[in-house]
Amino acid sequence: MAKELDFLTKRSEDYSRWYNELVVKADLAEQSDVRGCMIIKPYGYAIWEKMQRILDDMFKETGVQNAYFPLLIPKSFLSKEAEHVEGFAKECAVVTHYRLKTNDTHDGVVVDPAARLEEELIIRPTSETIIWNTFRNWIHSYRDLPVLCNQWCNVMRWEMRTRLFLRTSEFLWQEGHTAHATREEAEARARQMLGVYADFAENYMAVPVIRGVKSETERFAGALDTYTIEAMMQDGKALQSGTSHFLGQNFGKAFDVTFMDEQNERQYAWATSWGVSTRLMGALIMTHSDDNGLVLPPALAPIQVVIVPIYKNQEQLARVDAAVAPIVEELKRKGISVKYDNADNKRPGFKFADYELKGVPVRLVLGARDLDNGTVEVMRRDTLEKETRQLEGIAAEVETLLADIQRNIFEKARAYRDSRIYECDNYEEFKQRVKNGGFFLCPWDGTAETEARIKEETQATIRCVPFGMKQTPGTDMVSGRPSVARVIIARSY
Amino acid sequence: MAKELDFLTKRSEDYSRWYNELVVKADLAEQSDVRGCMIIKPYGYAIWEKMQRILDDMFKETGVQNAYFPLLIPKSFLSKEAEHVEGFAKECAVVTHYRLKTNDTHDGVVVDPAARLEEELIIRPTSETIIWNTFRNWIHSYRDLPVLCNQWCNVMRWEMRTRLFLRTSEFLWQEGHTAHATREEAEARARQMLGVYADFAENYMAVPVIRGVKSETERFAGALDTYTIEAMMQDGKALQSGTSHFLGQNFGKAFDVTFMDEQNERQYAWATSWGVSTRLMGALIMTHSDDNGLVLPPALAPIQVVIVPIYKNQEQLARVDAAVAPIVEELKRKGISVKYDNADNKRPGFKFADYELKGVPVRLVLGARDLDNGTVEVMRRDTLEKETRQLEGIAAEVETLLADIQRNIFEKARAYRDSRIYECDNYEEFKQRVKNGGFFLCPWDGTAETEARIKEETQATIRCVPFGMKQTPGTDMVSGRPSVARVIIARSY
Repeated sequence: MAKELDFLTKRSEDYSRWYNELVVKADLAEQSDVRGCMIIKPYGYAIWEKMQRILDDMFKETGVQNAYFPLLIPKSFLSKEAEHVEGFAKECAVVTHYRLKTNDTHDGVVVDPAARLEEELIIRPTSETIIWNTFRNWIHSYRDLPVLCNQWCNVMRWEMRTRLFLRTSEFLWQEGHTAHATREEAEARARQMLGVYADFAENYMAVPVIRGVKSETERFAGALDTYTIEAMMQDGKALQSGTSHFLGQNFGKAFDVTFMDEQNERQYAWATSWGVSTRLMGALIMTHSDDNGLVLPPALAPIQVVIVPIYKNQEQLARVDAAVAPIVEELKRKGISVKYDNADNKRPGFKFADYELKGVPVRLVLGARDLDNGTVEVMRRDTLEKETRQLEGIAAEVETLLADIQRNIFEKARAYRDSRIYECDNYEEFKQRVKNGGFFLCPWDGTAETEARIKEETQATIRCVPFGMKQTPGTDMVSGRPSVARVIIARSY
Repeated sequence: MAKELDFLTKRSEDYSRWYNELVVKADLAEQSDVRGCMIIKPYGYAIWEKMQRILDDMFKETGVQNAYFPLLIPKSFLSKEAEHVEGFAKECAVVTHYRLKTNDTHDGVVVDPAARLEEELIIRPTSETIIWNTFRNWIHSYRDLPVLCNQWCNVMRWEMRTRLFLRTSEFLWQEGHTAHATREEAEARARQMLGVYADFAENYMAVPVIRGVKSETERFAGALDTYTIEAMMQDGKALQSGTSHFLGQNFGKAFDVTFMDEQNERQYAWATSWGVSTRLMGALIMTHSDDNGLVLPPALAPIQVVIVPIYKNQEQLARVDAAVAPIVEELKRKGISVKYDNADNKRPGFKFADYELKGVPVRLVLGARDLDNGTVEVMRRDTLEKETRQLEGIAAEVETLLADIQRNIFEKARAYRDSRIYECDNYEEFKQRVKNGGFFLCPWDGTAETEARIKEETQATIRCVPFGMKQTPGTDMVSGRPSVARVIIARSY
C-alpha cells in the first residue's frame, strides 16, 4: 500500500490518468461490474453527504421542501414535451418485464416472456415529466402556488464512455422543480437557485465559478433559458458544475397544469428546474488536489484534523495519548472533526502519506520530545508547510488555520483561473491556444452555425454568456458578422 | 377542503379505509400513474427525513459508514446464492434495452431493438449480491474486517396489490451490510442492529415492539437467522417493522469473499444485513392516529407546535403578532419547531381541523381577550384536551408538554398492545379469536408443516419467537406434538 502511494501519476505527466488514479487510491469511488455504474466508497460518500447536508439546508432556507417521485417513468410521458424527448428519451434504461423465472436447466433465471409490461417504463434520466404530471393534481388556484419541491435521488442516462463522478450512467443528484403563477417569479427563482449553487461552490467547495446563461444549443431540452456555473479545472478545461433552468410554460402545457389566477382566469403554470450531482465531486477533486493526493476544503473534509503520535515504546505512547485527549476534546467542542490515529500496525510515514492522499487539511504530530518542550508539529495540507507550535492553545490555532486553508485554496484556485481567462478576437490564434486550455472570451454572432463550426474545428464549446460583463460591440471572430455578446469558449468535461 | 375533513372514515367503521384516506388527506403520500409506485409528498417526506436523520446518527454511533452501490444488478448475480434467488429473483423490474428511438409515425418513441443488453439487469430488490461482489475486492486480511456499510436508497419489488407505505413496488429504505471475521461477531452485530431498531421504534416513534427471531419459513432468503421487531396496529394486526439478518457465510461463499485470518489461514467472511423502510411510516400512522387524523410523536413531528391567532380586525391581529413573536423565538431557541399561522385567507376552525389532521402535537390559540388576561389556550393533540394557561413561561411549559405527549402516546400504545396479547393453547379457540386481531402466544412444535396449516386455515402467521421469554415445555395446539417454544402468532400487514 505504501508503495502504491508512490505511484500516483503526476498531473504534468497525464492529468486525466492522475484523476482516475486519485479517485480510486483515495478511496472515493470505483467502477462496478455493472457497465457505467460506480460504487461510491465510504470516504467519498462522506464528502458527498457533507455537500448534501449543506445544500439541503440552503434550499430549505429559500422555502424549498423535499419530496419523492417514482424512479420509473412511462415511456409515453417522455414524448409529451417535444424538445425534452429529443434530449432525454434516447439513451436510457428501459424496463420491459416484471418477472424472472427459473430456466429449463434449473441453474439460472431467465426473463419470463409472459410478464411483459403493456407500456415500457424508463428509469428516470430527470423527472420533469413525472413531476409535472403530478403537479396537475396539486395546482388549481394561484393560492396553491408557488410549489417548491426538491428530491435527492439517483438518475440514469446510458453512457458509452464513463469516468468516475464526471460521467457515469447512474449518478446521484438533487433535482428541484418549482411551479409559479408568473413568468417573472419563475425566472427569478431559476436565477436564485443558480445563486445558491454559486454560493455553495465558492464558499464551501472553494471552487470559483463563472455564472452565465447557456446558448440555445447548450440549453436543457425543454428550457427557455439554462443558467450555469462553470468552473475551471487545473488542465484549463471547463466543468459545468450546476445548472438552473427557466422552463417557461412548456411543461405546464405538455401536462396541462393550469390554475385560476386572481382575476379568475385560467393560466398555465410557469416552471423551473435545477440540479447538481455527484459530478461536483469531480470538480472538487480536480480544482484543488495535487501530486500527493487530495486537497479538501475544510468545510467539506470528513476528517478536518488528524493527530499522529511518534513514540518508541508503550510508555511514550501512553504519555502522548494522555496529552492528546484534551486536545481532541477541545477540537470536538469547537465542532471540528478530528481523528487521533494511534493504530500500532502502521508506521508514521505510512500514516502521513495516507492522510495526505486523503486530503486531511491539518495534521498534528506529537512525540516525546514535543511533550518535553510543550510543542507540536503542525502541517497544513494545502501548502504542505510544517511548523512547530506551542501545545498550549493549539485548538484555537487549528481553528484559525482551517479558516485560513479554506480561504487560501479558494484564492489560489481563483488566481489560477483568472490567469487563464483570455480575451481573444482572432480565430486562428484561438485555434492554436485553446489546445492548451483556458477560458476564451470571444465575440460571437449568436448563431448556432458559428457555434457548431467552432465545436467541430476545435472541440471547444460556448460555455456561457457570462453575467455582469460589460458587453461592447464587436465582430465575430469566426464569421466576421457583428457579435451579439462576448462569450466564454473552452474545452470542457 | 374543510368539508372533506369531515369525511375521514372512522376507524371503527373501516380501519383499512380510514388508513388509506388518512395518508392522502394528511398530505403524506399518493399513488402515482406508475403502477405500484408512490409519490411521497413534502409533509410525509419531512417525517421520513427526521427518521432518516435520527437512524443515521444511531448507525454511525455504532461505527457504520454510508456508501452507495449500483441500482442495477446483473441477472446472473441473483442466481449465485441458491435461496436468495428463490426469494428475490422472481417479481422484479427487468431492464432489457438501453435506447429508445423515434417511431415510424414520428409522434412517439419505441424501444430500439438494436439496443438490447447482452445480459439483462435487475433493479435492486435488495443489494446483498452486488455488495458482496464488491466486498471481494475490499476484503483480503482480517485487518480489513469488519466492514460496516449502509446505504440509503430506493429498491423495487414488483407487487400486484399495493398500499401506500405498507406495500409498494418502489420504496425507500436503508440497507446495512457488514462483513466479519467470526460467526460470533456477525451474530452480535445482527442483534445489535435489531436493538438499534427497537430503540428507535420505542423512543422516537413511540411504537412499542416485540423483538424476536423468525421461524425458518419466514426468514430472509439466504439468512441463517432473521431477527425482527413486531408492532401491533390498532386493529390488532402485526406489522413487521424492521429486520436484521445473520447471513452466515452464504454470501461469502457465493461471491468468494475470503480473508487470511491471524493464523494466516483462508476463511470465508461472515455477513449480516439489516433494513428498515418507508413501511415505518405505516407503523407510525397506524399506531397512534385517531378519527380526527394523524397523531405524531413530538420527536418526529415536522411541526411540533402551531400557534393560531384569533382576531376581529387588523389591529387585534397586530397585537397578537407582537405577543407571539417572542414566544416563537424562545421555542426556536429550545430547538422546538414552531409555526405561527396568521394566514388571513383561512378561518381558525379550518386551521384547527387541518392541524389536527396533520398531527401537530401542540396547538396554542391566542386572542385579544387572552392578551388582556395574559393567558393562552393550549391544546394537546394526543388527548385533544384544552387548557387555559398563563402566557408567562409558556415556552417552558410547551417543552414539558411535548415530552409528556411523547411518553403518553408510547404508554397508551403499549397498554393497548399488552391488553391484546393472549396466551392460547387451544386451536379451536385460537381460530375463533384470531379473527378479531391480537397477538397469540401459542406453543409450537417447530415444524413448517404446522406453520403452513395455521396460515392456510386462519391467515395468521408466526411473527416470531420472542426474545427473553421464559420458555416452558408444552404441547403444540395444532399437532399435539411437544412444543419447542411459545411463539407469537397473528394476522399481519
